[in-house]
Amino acid sequence: MKILVQKYGGTSVANQSRMQEVARRIVRCQEQGHAMVVVVSAMNHTTEDLIAAARRINPNPSPRAMDMLLATGEQMSVSLLAMAIEGLGHNVVSLTGGMSGIYTDQRHKKARIARVDSQRIMAELGKGNIVLVAGFQGVTPEGEITTLGRGGSDTTAVALAAAVVAERCEICTDVDGVYTADPNLIATARRLPEITYDEMLELSRLGAGVLSTRSVELAKEYGIPLVVRSAFSDDGGTQVVEVSVVEQVLVRGVTLDSDISRISVAGVPDRPGIAFGLFSKLASEGISVDMIIQNLNRAQVNDISFTVAKEDAPAAVQACWAFLESIGGHGLVLQKDNAAKISIVGTGITGSTEVASTLFGTLFESGINIEMISTSEIKISCIIDASEGEEALRRLHRAFSLDELELR
Amino acid sequence: MKILVQKYGGTSVANQSRMQEVARRIVRCQEQGHAMVVVVSAMNHTTEDLIAAARRINPNPSPRAMDMLLATGEQMSVSLLAMAIEGLGHNVVSLTGGMSGIYTDQRHKKARIARVDSQRIMAELGKGNIVLVAGFQGVTPEGEITTLGRGGSDTTAVALAAAVVAERCEICTDVDGVYTADPNLIATARRLPEITYDEMLELSRLGAGVLSTRSVELAKEYGIPLVVRSAFSDDGGTQVVEVSVVEQVLVRGVTLDSDISRISVAGVPDRPGIAFGLFSKLASEGISVDMIIQNLNRAQVNDISFTVAKEDAPAAVQACWAFLESIGGHGLVLQKDNAAKISIVGTGITGSTEVASTLFGTLFESGINIEMISTSEIKISCIIDASEGEEALRRLHRAFSLDELELR
Repeated sequence: MKILVQKYGGTSVANQSRMQEVARRIVRCQEQGHAMVVVVSAMNHTTEDLIAAARRINPNPSPRAMDMLLATGEQMSVSLLAMAIEGLGHNVVSLTGGMSGIYTDQRHKKARIARVDSQRIMAELGKGNIVLVAGFQGVTPEGEITTLGRGGSDTTAVALAAAVVAERCEICTDVDGVYTADPNLIATARRLPEITYDEMLELSRLGAGVLSTRSVELAKEYGIPLVVRSAFSDDGGTQVVEVSVVEQVLVRGVTLDSDISRISVAGVPDRPGIAFGLFSKLASEGISVDMIIQNLNRAQVNDISFTVAKEDAPAAVQACWAFLESIGGHGLVLQKDNAAKISIVGTGITGSTEVASTLFGTLFESGINIEMISTSEIKISCIIDASEGEEALRRLHRAFSLDELELR
Repeated sequence: MKILVQKYGGTSVANQSRMQEVARRIVRCQEQGHAMVVVVSAMNHTTEDLIAAARRINPNPSPRAMDMLLATGEQMSVSLLAMAIEGLGHNVVSLTGGMSGIYTDQRHKKARIARVDSQRIMAELGKGNIVLVAGFQGVTPEGEITTLGRGGSDTTAVALAAAVVAERCEICTDVDGVYTADPNLIATARRLPEITYDEMLELSRLGAGVLSTRSVELAKEYGIPLVVRSAFSDDGGTQVVEVSVVEQVLVRGVTLDSDISRISVAGVPDRPGIAFGLFSKLASEGISVDMIIQNLNRAQVNDISFTVAKEDAPAAVQACWAFLESIGGHGLVLQKDNAAKISIVGTGITGSTEVASTLFGTLFESGINIEMISTSEIKISCIIDASEGEEALRRLHRAFSLDELELR
């Protein structure tokens, strides 16, 4: 049995006519000889509407109640898509996350998949059914409904692809692949026919919304051939692969994340263990810290700055104040919201002096000040002022000749 | 532990402010010393909206897919109500039908509760939680989601009351009790402080929407003290009891059901087994037949007429044609939709000649033609033309002095 796992996002099933279109596409894939497992997100705006309804009733609902509520979104879309496929005369079965055997840990709103029991899905495929699975959700071993957090449906799809040993996992979305930059910001952005897991991972981490980080990690771990493609066209697509054969291209993409806050803890004593204590405190609050800079300002007094996702900033500030209190009440916490992170991604770029000098040179010539820098094996990120983000994106995209990329 | 089971219908949780109000009421009941188990329907219009969305995609979706879809309605309302109670600082847990241990048979869209495993609910009550249960739904032993059909949330409430050995089951709704007639049609209708299970059962069967038939059957079977009361006021209410002490009142209520179709199968051979065959066929299609009349018209040729709920009429007509075909193609099927059933209900009324003569006399004096009559121990029903239904209701309500009923 050649199993194909597809995932359709919220815009792909946003209304009746799109659902019908997706249904026809799924049926076509089945007729081409694939056993079909299809993961579906909530219809566009459903999740937002549910969150808004919840907040009107309680500004701070429990994660458990929130998961019970949000899980209905995917259950609705999977039910309606099943009806559309029934209407085409094909056998189909819709399953919730729990029914399809997706078991998670207990962390409501950001659960991790612990185990996939593929028995039910395999039995349904064996009966010739198209199997639709509600994305973004699972159950704990005790049967409590959990959700996987942002991008959870991608993760569902890749985890199922691994569990059923699928030939391929296709993420069908509203863009036709992974681009050298966000096409909404850069008109000349080019689609990449191929990208490595590691590069994709960096792009996802850096806020390229096309794939969730966790799904790319899983795909890499299990060696799942992953494809990002349009939900509505058979053209295009980007293959996510282990090793790319397009060797001559060094920089694959430029990303901009404008939802960054920079937080500074100023005037803390220069003692061993201070930074460790601060970042342990932040980690224990579930706040993920990105870049860190430490400056020794005056004798025995330090400034520590770091960046977090803007949505985590209020909690981070609170945690920092609590930390300062715990070490005797010295220091100050400052928050700057108008930060942006501009990054370039590509295998081997940190080994190339030319890439670094083009990056810094371009920003310098544009009069854009770099506040922080961080590098990894395959990316270089700079924190700049948010007001200069799009300008930086455009200039770097041109400087690395990404708009002239030769594509297959 | 004194357990109180309450059920709130769709209008009681229709919007944010009503949910808050219901939340405060539930908390008040808990503070009065009750362990609270609360069954919640989908918010008003949710179910209708989901059905409409389904029909736009597929006019004839599978019952299984429909159940997956509809079950989200109650899951949403139970989640939101939990958030409202959390906002009041009380411990609460929301459960789907399946999570709360409601196991049903496999009949999607009209499943019957087969078993209630109250373990989870009792454990949650033991922890001091208010337990909210999504009404109208359950799971099969295989974990498939089912719905209980019309009035299913009442049934959920009574079944849970039996399973947890509740002190009382309160059906909290948008009216403050059971009335002598529909107050929307008869301004002088009076609330009954008390009614017997059997009388209530007849009223429910006859279309008094206040309680589902199945829930009354269950309450009678398990001897559950049942109360119908307003969701928003502590006043009023109707107790449903085994034996009523209000003995002097003979006729308790008058009901009108305008959603009746009369179907005639004309010109069938007058052979033994014909009627049996016809009604077996209808039963096997799941069509519930109410009144039946058989006329011998000419030699060896029969007319059989019967009434069904209007929504079942198309399926019934189809089944009748199929039956005629199976016996050789004789005969004709006719459908009349503008029929109504007017009924009077009260323990012992069929034993009273005075009641029968008042009924038939009043209709005769009003020039209303009776097409069919059926009686049971505690009710007399007449099929009349739908255009005369409300007139008949008003006249009978007055004729039996129901607007002058002495009430406590």
